[in-house]
Amino acid sequence: MAKLIFRADELRDYVVRFFVKYGVPEADARIAADILVTADLRGVDSHGVIRLDTYYGSRLRKGLISPRPEIKVIRETATTLALDGGSGLGHVVGHRAMQAAIEKAREMGVGMVTARNSNHYGIAGYYAMMALEHNMIGISYTNSQPLVAPTYGRTAILGTNPIAVAVPAGKHRPYVLDMATSIVPIGRITVYQKAGKEIPEGWGIDKDGQVTRDPNAVLKGGALMPLGGIDLMRGYKGYGLALLVDIFSGVLSGASTGAQVGHPNENIPADVGHFFAAINIEAFRPIEEFKEHMDRLLGELKDAPKALGQERIYIHGEKEFELAEKYEREGVPLMVEVVDSLKATGAEVGLPFDLVPVGRVD
Amino acid sequence: MAKLIFRADELRDYVVRFFVKYGVPEADARIAADILVTADLRGVDSHGVIRLDTYYGSRLRKGLISPRPEIKVIRETATTLALDGGSGLGHVVGHRAMQAAIEKAREMGVGMVTARNSNHYGIAGYYAMMALEHNMIGISYTNSQPLVAPTYGRTAILGTNPIAVAVPAGKHRPYVLDMATSIVPIGRITVYQKAGKEIPEGWGIDKDGQVTRDPNAVLKGGALMPLGGIDLMRGYKGYGLALLVDIFSGVLSGASTGAQVGHPNENIPADVGHFFAAINIEAFRPIEEFKEHMDRLLGELKDAPKALGQERIYIHGEKEFELAEKYEREGVPLMVEVVDSLKATGAEVGLPFDLVPVGRVD
Repeated sequence: MAKLIFRADELRDYVVRFFVKYGVPEADARIAADILVTADLRGVDSHGVIRLDTYYGSRLRKGLISPRPEIKVIRETATTLALDGGSGLGHVVGHRAMQAAIEKAREMGVGMVTARNSNHYGIAGYYAMMALEHNMIGISYTNSQPLVAPTYGRTAILGTNPIAVAVPAGKHRPYVLDMATSIVPIGRITVYQKAGKEIPEGWGIDKDGQVTRDPNAVLKGGALMPLGGIDLMRGYKGYGLALLVDIFSGVLSGASTGAQVGHPNENIPADVGHFFAAINIEAFRPIEEFKEHMDRLLGELKDAPKALGQERIYIHGEKEFELAEKYEREGVPLMVEVVDSLKATGAEVGLPFDLVPVGRVD
Repeated sequence: MAKLIFRADELRDYVVRFFVKYGVPEADARIAADILVTADLRGVDSHGVIRLDTYYGSRLRKGLISPRPEIKVIRETATTLALDGGSGLGHVVGHRAMQAAIEKAREMGVGMVTARNSNHYGIAGYYAMMALEHNMIGISYTNSQPLVAPTYGRTAILGTNPIAVAVPAGKHRPYVLDMATSIVPIGRITVYQKAGKEIPEGWGIDKDGQVTRDPNAVLKGGALMPLGGIDLMRGYKGYGLALLVDIFSGVLSGASTGAQVGHPNENIPADVGHFFAAINIEAFRPIEEFKEHMDRLLGELKDAPKALGQERIYIHGEKEFELAEKYEREGVPLMVEVVDSLKATGAEVGLPFDLVPVGRVD
C-alpha cells in the first residue's frame, strides 16, 4: 500500500481548521487535532485522521455531535466528578475529564472522573499519558459500539472497550498500556477480508458462535472474540475485562452500555461513556524512588534472555514512542486512499486538503 | 479423584486452631481461616486449605511469616495509605489494608492502599468482595513469584499476578472478576504432567521460549504464557496486564518485583506487594440507579443468544457463588490426598486433623 508522508504539524493545523469550520472553538479543535494526529504518530492509524469525517465531521454535520457542548457537572466531591458530555466531541469531553482527575489527584492523592453522553474519543492512551508529566499514574477506559460476543454467546454485545494505563519511569520511557479487550479490532478483520485472506483461528466467530477463519462470516452477523479467545485459552477473562470497562465507563457514568452504545457511523446519538483516574505517586512513595524502581523492573524485563529467534523484549508503549519520534521528525505516512478520502471530503465541505506531502513510500 | 466432604464451619475452626497454635491472635486467625476456606467454597481449591502448611504453616515455623506482625504506616493521606506488612500473613495484611480502603472511600469517595513486605494472601477476589456490602466497587491486585515470561522472552519474570474487581448489582449476583493474568496457573500444568497428558498449545513455553505441549518442558526451565498466548493472539496484552499488576502491587508499594518476589515454598522472605482500592458508587450516581443499570447490563448478557451447543452465558463470579452456596449447605469436598496431607501435618505439629467427613465423592 503506497503512502504519502505529511508533516505532523501541518496535519494538526488542517484538522484544527476542519473542526473550526464546524463551529468547534479553536482551543477545543486543537485538543481534538492533537489527539487524532497523535494516533497517527504512534502508529495507531485506525484512530487517526482516517476517521476525521466518518466518525466526527459527518456527525457534526448531522447534529449528532455538538460543536459547543454544554459539559455539565452531575455530581462532584473533592476526589470524584461525574460529567455529562453534552454530546460533544469525545476528545474534548475526555480531555476536560482527565484534566479534572489530575487536578483532584494533585490535591487529594487520587482523582476519578466519569463522563456520559459523549462520543468516540480516539486513542485511550492519550488521556492516560496526560498524567505522566504530573508524576502521576493515568488510567482511561471507554466503552464503544457492540463488536465482541461474551463467552458462549454468538452476538456482539460488548465493545472492543480499551484499557489504557500510563506510568512514569526514570531513564526508561514510561509504561503505556493501551489495549482493546478484544484480540484484534474489527479493522484487522476488514484488512484480511479486503486481501481475500483467511483470519487466524480464534480471532472471531460466525453467526452461530462457532470459531471461523472466514473474515466475511465475522463481519456478517458474527463477532470478535475477547482477549484469550476460546474457553480453553481462557477467553472469559478477556470477556470479563471488556465487561469491566463497560461497567466503569457506562454503568458508573450512566451512559449507554452493552449493545445500546451507538456506532459512530450510524445516525443515532452514541451516548458513549468514559472513565478516567489519576493517582499521585508521591502519596505512596517518593517519586524518585518510584522511578528508580520502575527503571529496575523495566530493565529486568528488557535485559531478560530472549526466546529463540527474537532479539528484543518490549515494554508497552515503547514501539509507539519510537515511531512517534521518527514520524514527528520525518513526517507521518498516510495511505494514499486515506489522503484521497481527505481530499474528497475537503472538496465537498469547501476546505481543500491542500497539504504538500514531504515524501512517499511504495 | 476421590474426595471427602467436610462442613465449612468445621474446616474454618480447624484452620483457626492451626494458626492460633503458631501464635497468630485469634481474630487474625479467623480472618485467614475465612479467606482460605472461602477459596475452597468457591471452587478455587488451589488457594484453599491445600496450602495451609506449605504456604503458611511451614513459613510460620521457620520465622518467614510473623504471627504478630507490626503493620506500619509508611505514608497516609485522607484517600491513600501505604503499609509495611511486617512480614505477616498476607490475609491479615490484605484484610487490614482493604478495610482501610473502604473506610477512606466512605469518607472521601475513593480509597487506595498499598502493602509491601507481605506474603501470599490467597484469593484476590476475597478482598475485592469486601467492598460489596458497602455499596462500593472493590479492587485487589497482588504480585507473586516469577512464573510468566514476557512476550519474546524465555524465562519466568512476572507472577501470575491476579486482577480482582467486584461490583455490586441488584437482583443479579455481583460481578466478581478474579483472574490470573497468565492463561492458566502453574497448578494446571502440574495436573497434566501427573496425568501424563499433553497441554493445549499456547499455555506454556520451554527453556528456549518455544511454545511446547510438554508439561515437563514448562515446569523445567520453561514458563507460563500470559493471557492471550502467542504474539499473533496478542499475548503482549496479557504480559502488559501482568506487568501492570506488578507496578501497582510492587513498585507503588515498594515491595519486591519481577523475579525478586519470593516463592512461598522457598526459605526466603517473600516481600510480596498488594494493591487495594474501594470506590464509593454514590459519589458518582445514586446506588439504586447504579444497581438497576448493572441488572440491565448483566441481564442483557445472560439473555443473549447462545453459541451452538451452549446453554448458558455466565457473569464473572456466578459459578463461584453457586458453588459456595452449595458447599456451605452440603459441605466442602477435599481431595483425599489433601486430607491425607492435612492429617500428616496435624500429627506432626500436634494438632490432629480429626474432622469427621459428612460424605464422600468417588
